[in-house]
Amino acid sequence: MSLIIIGTVAFDAIETPFGKTDKIVGGAATYAGLAASYFYDKTKIVSVVGDDFGQDNIDIFTEHGIDTEGLQIKEGEKSFFWSGKYHNDMNSRDTLITELNVLEAFDPVIPENYQDCEYLMLGNLTPVVQSTVIKRLKTRPKLIVLDTMNFWMDIMMPDLLETIKMVDVLTINDAEARQLSGEYSLVKAARKILTMGPKYLIIKKGEHGALLFHEDKVFSAPALPLADVFDPTGAGDTFAGGFIGYMAKVGTVNFNNMKNAIIFGSALASFCVEKFGTEKILNLTDIEVAARVQEFVSLSAFTIEA
Amino acid sequence: MSLIIIGTVAFDAIETPFGKTDKIVGGAATYAGLAASYFYDKTKIVSVVGDDFGQDNIDIFTEHGIDTEGLQIKEGEKSFFWSGKYHNDMNSRDTLITELNVLEAFDPVIPENYQDCEYLMLGNLTPVVQSTVIKRLKTRPKLIVLDTMNFWMDIMMPDLLETIKMVDVLTINDAEARQLSGEYSLVKAARKILTMGPKYLIIKKGEHGALLFHEDKVFSAPALPLADVFDPTGAGDTFAGGFIGYMAKVGTVNFNNMKNAIIFGSALASFCVEKFGTEKILNLTDIEVAARVQEFVSLSAFTIEA
Repeated sequence: MSLIIIGTVAFDAIETPFGKTDKIVGGAATYAGLAASYFYDKTKIVSVVGDDFGQDNIDIFTEHGIDTEGLQIKEGEKSFFWSGKYHNDMNSRDTLITELNVLEAFDPVIPENYQDCEYLMLGNLTPVVQSTVIKRLKTRPKLIVLDTMNFWMDIMMPDLLETIKMVDVLTINDAEARQLSGEYSLVKAARKILTMGPKYLIIKKGEHGALLFHEDKVFSAPALPLADVFDPTGAGDTFAGGFIGYMAKVGTVNFNNMKNAIIFGSALASFCVEKFGTEKILNLTDIEVAARVQEFVSLSAFTIEA
Repeated sequence: MSLIIIGTVAFDAIETPFGKTDKIVGGAATYAGLAASYFYDKTKIVSVVGDDFGQDNIDIFTEHGIDTEGLQIKEGEKSFFWSGKYHNDMNSRDTLITELNVLEAFDPVIPENYQDCEYLMLGNLTPVVQSTVIKRLKTRPKLIVLDTMNFWMDIMMPDLLETIKMVDVLTINDAEARQLSGEYSLVKAARKILTMGPKYLIIKKGEHGALLFHEDKVFSAPALPLADVFDPTGAGDTFAGGFIGYMAKVGTVNFNNMKNAIIFGSALASFCVEKFGTEKILNLTDIEVAARVQEFVSLSAFTIEA
């Protein structure tokens, strides 16, 4: 029994109004894997890096109990590199550099001992690579979560729709939900998307929290109001990793557990943005995580007599 | 003991993607008064209209048990008129016509039997008119709520700051909180605004709900995701009226009661946008209101073992 996370493992160079970094370790599978590792100890990643990605960087995963057998290392090639600069409001950013490098010909390999996968997180990557992973698993996982973005809707919508058909949970932001459905109202967008394959839809609204739709039910999760957002990079991946890590831990797929998984994912994401890159989510204690989750509880609790 | 609501009573002509209206009754005090009347039966309004505002329109208030002794009727003058057109996303609108008419020289009159005021809602109007009402009450009300907007920040900031000093609760939207404080982070904005006079700050975020700040506490209220928003006119005033009406009903000013008041205000506002103008909030039953409040409860409830 295990949780597989597929996504990029990369170098990022980030500039925010608070400072800038040299090349640091980033990527969707990195953030999601670290986040999931706080809840579930059988987390495995599938990704690819170049030989510029040293053993000290691979150690980041192993130190968190994450299996890296599915992390291919391409000799003589370079890792995926992204560089971006955030604007003052932290809600928008410019991409300065994107070097695909090893990602260009990425063919995911599923090691034999990954075939016990029960939980599968398909982090942001081309929809074809995402569906390939599903096809290479001999048994369909109990829960497949797909994260994607507007970029794939713009250039590969038919492939994306094929992949969406195969999953249980789709996580996208509000603009992407509108783009995917052609509906402005998020309720109508959700109704339409829930006919495309997924049984659950999570709409991420950043500083406004998240919505979970399932059948005719809706859950609205708050976002923790923060005095300072230092670096938003990886917040969405951290959310997704915390979400599926929590689901793997509790082991039963239902609406109530997903509500809690969203709170745990949001809590991890709220830590992520407090420092550059993965720095803050490298060394959290269980006590810190539990205290942050309790902040979410107080934030949204009210009692009205029926 | 009573609740006084001051604000405009006006004619509106509204165009949305769903249709358009002729002149219909609108105005901040109208929406707020109707909303408050669902919770509190000693609601009184202070406003001004022209002689074009017929008895049948005044009957709207009296049918809801709202005292209109403080509603001045100016012979030979015309009522305030606003006309606006909403864009397709319903989040932005163009003002087509604003005719101040009777509002231009509005000098609020407080009838003697309004002097028992315990709860005061200062709906959107010039800050000078708002503070005049406070000064004309012989006893300071137990709770003063101020609603205002960016327009007054642009042209009358010093007067607005003087009025803000005198109130207990300020309700503004997120852009206005940023403008008033000069801080982008809503947490920092709230900290600054809570030093300007008010002990409570409500930041309205429309389709994203509302935040309540008090001392070092925060409450995040969800917004009900709606399939159709028919006409957003008056939603903010309805929210404010429901809020203070509920506070007047429970009678004790504290953080927990304000959290519930925000939910009841949000519930009323969610009805308001379902039809043009005041149509939907004219004839709600207690059962409808209670059911809608329970929708807010289910929407945001989750249970995490500590």
